Amino acid sequence: MISGPFLSKNWMASVEDYADAQIVMLGLPFDGTCSYRPGSRFAPERLRLASWGLEEFSPDFCKDMNDVRFFDAGELEFPLGNTQASLDLIEKNVNEIYSDGKKFLGIGGEHLVTLPAFRACKNFFKDLCVVHFDAHTDLREDYLGEKNSHASVIRRIGEIAGFENIKQIGIRSGTKEEFDLMNEYSTLIHSFDGLDGFRDKKIFLTIDIDVLDPSIMPGTGTPEAGGLTYAQLREWLKYLANFDIVGADVVELAPDYDKSEVSTAVAAKVVRDVLMIL
Amino acid sequence: MISGPFLSKNWMASVEDYADAQIVMLGLPFDGTCSYRPGSRFAPERLRLASWGLEEFSPDFCKDMNDVRFFDAGELEFPLGNTQASLDLIEKNVNEIYSDGKKFLGIGGEHLVTLPAFRACKNFFKDLCVVHFDAHTDLREDYLGEKNSHASVIRRIGEIAGFENIKQIGIRSGTKEEFDLMNEYSTLIHSFDGLDGFRDKKIFLTIDIDVLDPSIMPGTGTPEAGGLTYAQLREWLKYLANFDIVGADVVELAPDYDKSEVSTAVAAKVVRDVLMIL
Amino acid sequence: MISGPFLSKNWMASVEDYADAQIVMLGLPFDGTCSYRPGSRFAPERLRLASWGLEEFSPDFCKDMNDVRFFDAGELEFPLGNTQASLDLIEKNVNEIYSDGKKFLGIGGEHLVTLPAFRACKNFFKDLCVVHFDAHTDLREDYLGEKNSHASVIRRIGEIAGFENIKQIGIRSGTKEEFDLMNEYSTLIHSFDGLDGFRDKKIFLTIDIDVLDPSIMPGTGTPEAGGLTYAQLREWLKYLANFDIVGADVVELAPDYDKSEVSTAVAAKVVRDVLMIL
Amino acid sequence: MISGPFLSKNWMASVEDYADAQIVMLGLPFDGTCSYRPGSRFAPERLRLASWGLEEFSPDFCKDMNDVRFFDAGELEFPLGNTQASLDLIEKNVNEIYSDGKKFLGIGGEHLVTLPAFRACKNFFKDLCVVHFDAHTDLREDYLGEKNSHASVIRRIGEIAGFENIKQIGIRSGTKEEFDLMNEYSTLIHSFDGLDGFRDKKIFLTIDIDVLDPSIMPGTGTPEAGGLTYAQLREWLKYLANFDIVGADVVELAPDYDKSEVSTAVAAKVVRDVLMIL
Amino acid sequence: MISGPFLSKNWMASVEDYADAQIVMLGLPFDGTCSYRPGSRFAPERLRLASWGLEEFSPDFCKDMNDVRFFDAGELEFPLGNTQASLDLIEKNVNEIYSDGKKFLGIGGEHLVTLPAFRACKNFFKDLCVVHFDAHTDLREDYLGEKNSHASVIRRIGEIAGFENIKQIGIRSGTKEEFDLMNEYSTLIHSFDGLDGFRDKKIFLTIDIDVLDPSIMPGTGTPEAGGLTYAQLREWLKYLANFDIVGADVVELAPDYDKSEVSTAVAAKVVRDVLMIL
Amino acid sequence: MISGPFLSKNWMASVEDYADAQIVMLGLPFDGTCSYRPGSRFAPERLRLASWGLEEFSPDFCKDMNDVRFFDAGELEFPLGNTQASLDLIEKNVNEIYSDGKKFLGIGGEHLVTLPAFRACKNFFKDLCVVHFDAHTDLREDYLGEKNSHASVIRRIGEIAGFENIKQIGIRSGTKEEFDLMNEYSTLIHSFDGLDGFRDKKIFLTIDIDVLDPSIMPGTGTPEAGGLTYAQLREWLKYLANFDIVGADVVELAPDYDKSEVSTAVAAKVVRDVLMIL
Repeated sequence: MISGPFLSKNWMASVEDYADAQIVMLGLPFDGTCSYRPGSRFAPERLRLASWGLEEFSPDFCKDMNDVRFFDAGELEFPLGNTQASLDLIEKNVNEIYSDGKKFLGIGGEHLVTLPAFRACKNFFKDLCVVHFDAHTDLREDYLGEKNSHASVIRRIGEIAGFENIKQIGIRSGTKEEFDLMNEYSTLIHSFDGLDGFRDKKIFLTIDIDVLDPSIMPGTGTPEAGGLTYAQLREWLKYLANFDIVGADVVELAPDYDKSEVSTAVAAKVVRDVLMIL
Repeated sequence: MISGPFLSKNWMASVEDYADAQIVMLGLPFDGTCSYRPGSRFAPERLRLASWGLEEFSPDFCKDMNDVRFFDAGELEFPLGNTQASLDLIEKNVNEIYSDGKKFLGIGGEHLVTLPAFRACKNFFKDLCVVHFDAHTDLREDYLGEKNSHASVIRRIGEIAGFENIKQIGIRSGTKEEFDLMNEYSTLIHSFDGLDGFRDKKIFLTIDIDVLDPSIMPGTGTPEAGGLTYAQLREWLKYLANFDIVGADVVELAPDYDKSEVSTAVAAKVVRDVLMIL
Repeated sequence: MISGPFLSKNWMASVEDYADAQIVMLGLPFDGTCSYRPGSRFAPERLRLASWGLEEFSPDFCKDMNDVRFFDAGELEFPLGNTQASLDLIEKNVNEIYSDGKKFLGIGGEHLVTLPAFRACKNFFKDLCVVHFDAHTDLREDYLGEKNSHASVIRRIGEIAGFENIKQIGIRSGTKEEFDLMNEYSTLIHSFDGLDGFRDKKIFLTIDIDVLDPSIMPGTGTPEAGGLTYAQLREWLKYLANFDIVGADVVELAPDYDKSEVSTAVAAKVVRDVLMIL
Repeated sequence: MISGPFLSKNWMASVEDYADAQIVMLGLPFDGTCSYRPGSRFAPERLRLASWGLEEFSPDFCKDMNDVRFFDAGELEFPLGNTQASLDLIEKNVNEIYSDGKKFLGIGGEHLVTLPAFRACKNFFKDLCVVHFDAHTDLREDYLGEKNSHASVIRRIGEIAGFENIKQIGIRSGTKEEFDLMNEYSTLIHSFDGLDGFRDKKIFLTIDIDVLDPSIMPGTGTPEAGGLTYAQLREWLKYLANFDIVGADVVELAPDYDKSEVSTAVAAKVVRDVLMIL
Repeated sequence: MISGPFLSKNWMASVEDYADAQIVMLGLPFDGTCSYRPGSRFAPERLRLASWGLEEFSPDFCKDMNDVRFFDAGELEFPLGNTQASLDLIEKNVNEIYSDGKKFLGIGGEHLVTLPAFRACKNFFKDLCVVHFDAHTDLREDYLGEKNSHASVIRRIGEIAGFENIKQIGIRSGTKEEFDLMNEYSTLIHSFDGLDGFRDKKIFLTIDIDVLDPSIMPGTGTPEAGGLTYAQLREWLKYLANFDIVGADVVELAPDYDKSEVSTAVAAKVVRDVLMIL
Repeated sequence: MISGPFLSKNWMASVEDYADAQIVMLGLPFDGTCSYRPGSRFAPERLRLASWGLEEFSPDFCKDMNDVRFFDAGELEFPLGNTQASLDLIEKNVNEIYSDGKKFLGIGGEHLVTLPAFRACKNFFKDLCVVHFDAHTDLREDYLGEKNSHASVIRRIGEIAGFENIKQIGIRSGTKEEFDLMNEYSTLIHSFDGLDGFRDKKIFLTIDIDVLDPSIMPGTGTPEAGGLTYAQLREWLKYLANFDIVGADVVELAPDYDKSEVSTAVAAKVVRDVLMIL
């Protein structure tokens, strides 16, 4: 019998069995409504490879990945080109994760994948709030007539959760109408106290990786200058460690647009950071 | 008044007015059903830029582009993420081109764009045949349940035109079932005499650029080793100059996957070659 | 008749007719005196493509591009390899723009293109001042004997305008002699009050895109570490909105050196910012 | 319980259980003695991802991958920087594969990994011959004093197997001494009949992927112009289907040197071809 | 006789003769124990080319390279794959440099090259201290069993110099055990006063270029988000100008991972900065 | 005294002293009249680095580089932006090489550098013929009014040498007028016997590297599909070994357009081939 030792085919430091996990990482390689540069479908598999370039210990969070019990479930196989069926598949699987008493960590794919995941999560946590990191508002009523679009995902979520239960960080691009909506509900926050109202709430955390500045994150579909440094995002995540996050995702990495693979390495570290606070 | 002179924003050697043209070049930046590496949506605009690296004279065809009267209509604007509405838009516009007594030259985008263009063309030429250059058969009944897919486009066209009216060149990848269908109708040909039956027919010419070997055409969604050299494709096109081609397209260039931009330069030359024989 | 709808071949949100414009955008694809990495000749056409990845609304400037009436004149066609004739062509066209009562926005090309544009502008505004963003002083007497060089452009302009009418921002590279000249005239400024003397003056704004740090702007001929962040440049531009800018250019983007195309996307945003304040 | 469906983390069409397999694919991410451009350590994991871009059916071999029962064992974990211990680990595992009555298919890594694999294989097949595809002779006595080097691997194997039992194809680079040795034993062959002596022998097949021309295989450590086309290599492999191959490997893909990922796609197809004839 | 003028094949502004130099720049193209992305072996030759894109004058240090008398000795030729012999060769040559009364400036290669250089330097300066810029602690007892590893280099140096004589800047990745060791000896410092104890000491300065943020330094083996900006590193170096630095190196640039070549340009500037303070 | 051993900073296998050489390799980093993609200025320095990836022995030419006595003179330093002065500098230096009784091997830069070199060579060999490998005719009367242009270089040379003394190989792009001129003088040849008339003549060999197909040579300014394979070019060069070549150059490599660096490796091999037959 072949004896190895073998390198793992799973995410760095993930547990072997679904049953042992408190968190389930689920890859969502869907980029069907992307309006500019596609390719986020390749993010989950490339992040898995890149995860092995990370240390297990994080000096920022003073924590070791071996103390985080998460299972790498792999990527869903989608019916290509059928947006609705893909979203339904996500919702079904995320529902199962919460039914099993575990937390969901989604790896996009484009931002629209957050909608069905949020819907599933909301079935289990009635007053679910949203913390949303992004360069773009994603608050459009529709995009070229399509209501289920990456550019409308937070609008759809707001219609479910109430826009007063959404806080947005890093937003720097959108239409006049979207910014008006943001102002109406004061969703955009710039400092930690903007999260004061979420202290005793359950939180769904969604990170569009383009919230980071394109200098550190060129590998994304719609790079937008003027973003957060990694250090700024990390401080936000360290602060969020004090909150009750019940689900999360990291989306919109498009690895092929950054041939240095730094974008993938940075996004892998952000995923590790999120695992530290889930 | 500003006097220039200015570089043109249109394809090299295109005519100024639609009315003066015998051929209408129409960009079709759609890649919604792509199953592997997306990005052919960027091909039409990049081919336009690259066209200016070409000479107007072709020693291979002994012809000058100034003797080809074609109009660069630009790219269609699609309702993003809505495959059916996009296909309908193509069909409508190609219909208009033929109604105006002109020939259509489509610039993909993915291969599915050929289906509505062929449908429109067939309205005007009842016994329309198809000459199909490709690495892949594209003869699947469906792809993950979807009938309108880049992987099924020639199957759909065969259902309209009759598979006996299709000839395929360069095919080297597909399922067992697809190759059985090819054998049943002897669609796959390897030498010029395979086109003997098309001598007096009207022909729609569709070139999936991945028919070329990936050594010369890395910039495509699904590169497949063992393809034609450019010289081989050029000889086929020179032979096709003897036939009555009433419509054509060149599809599946994904320019961002070839950072040397050689793929785009080669595809631009193929488009020039097609213009020489239309 | 073919009915579309078609994507525009012009810059995002530009007006259809020259007559309707207050600002004329003119592409200047010249890089003939570049001393290190050439390729800025490709910037205007690539910025046009990239402009479609931008939103029309800017939350930073609280303004919509539809309220900016600018015309995209396209690129000048230069007599290749003939520097003097190229410069003359620029001067002639910019003269025409000002004769028509419009403002000029140049898109380089290398920095030397600023010289003839400034000359033309100065014909119409006698006490014209210069605000110059750059990593390099560009104040050399000559470069390898050539007086008309990208490395001497601000020296030449200073000889026309008076060095006391030049303010420089972001400079971090040059010879000892150049820094001595900067000190003599106190051209280098580090905070907004350095512009106090320009309050009631007409200003020509010239932005060498390498003023940005190479982390966000690798796609330039001579990347120089230690530059401005995009946010810093944006704040300067927002402050400049209070001044009377009568002409401007953005130069030295070399798009092929940044295969992620982030440099082009960022430069397009800078161009949009400049349009907001012209 | 989460129900998926999930994409596989293993090679396309591999079997689930080691016990069911006739062939064991073993990744060997070692490039410690590479003398020019390192990075073949990343080949096994990237080939696994790329395998999903292949069809299961091969029209060239008229065979379906589902009829090939191979197990993807994953990659060995090497004691980094310790060449001898790494080679020992390979030998031990390959021994186990043959002890279990299965065939070995190695995925390099650099060419030195072939040495311990060959040694293990030779334990089970006494008169083992070698068919060696490569651009380089790899017949050096040593390389800068090191006997265990990618540049000496065939010399070492020849010392074990006898040089008369080695046939080489595609060689086009080496020292005068290496070519003298090749001439002495007539190892270099140019047509199928060069393999006539191997008809009734057991064969170990080793393919250094740089045997392919750099036009189709830029992603390798030491690209050497003048190589085989993919079609030529495929014809050799189709001919080898008539021989008794008991072990094989494909080595020296350095995926990061070809950002179009065509090299990886082509190498994945070569691996599929080898699986068809093992 | 051919008269030129010719471009130099040496580093910008280096002196012609070894005898005239106070500083000797020595290239160390060794990356044999690299655990993730290899390629730092190519750094010395590429930095030499890139040095010609720098100005001779530095406004930051108010100094001209012509006032720095350094000799570009070229790169050592290593016995490939033999770590110990390579390290010995470095130690021997650095010894010779100090024997000649000159200072050593090493250009890596991976970080392990610092160990023999430090050893040689320590022969001449008994109480030698270390200032260490890096993203990683490099304090492991061993790496996969190997004691001579890039991941253990500072541990080995600390065993020689005493950990109380090491100060580290920019560290953000390591194991729990490494951070415990750092805490025990307070090696990690965050502000200038952390260097107070080194005022009257001789200092060996070692800069792993990945101390810089990957936004500005993607071209390195193990990019780690959250690093220093170039401006921050430059301020540290300006402060270090007040100290007695007797030897230095700059290591771990892997130029091929940054195709924009910005990483190489930035590292060349860092080398120039170090030359200014040696 | 530092003892090394050191890697050479010169071309692989070049001799130390000019006096000992029969051939002088001279780098000509000039690309001032390039009409499409500039960057051939970087070819000489990159070819020098790449030369070290070649073996000294060539099995094709059965010859060792140590039997070729050539001196690597380095690159000329040009007065940037001044075409005429640059050409004069080349002519002067090449004159000196021939005055010293040596042969010239130029490394471009763009093709215009051949003109002054040819002029100098013709001073010493009255009936000098030209063998010209290229994708483009380079026979234009002028290019946008400029007579000294890379697109006119062979026209200028023909005016000096007589067009009957020029043979061209690989040409596949040009204007109608250029092809008419080629036909008039039967310059274009397709087989070895086309060189019969040159048997007893002195030959200047000029190779525009874009004569190779872009599949193997993407790194050039104006890639043109349908070119020679490396093997075809090598066979021509082997045949030319029977002729009396008194000077040669290899031009138009633009290394930055091929990030795999295969173009540079292939061009280096072509240079080695030329050295074998000079």
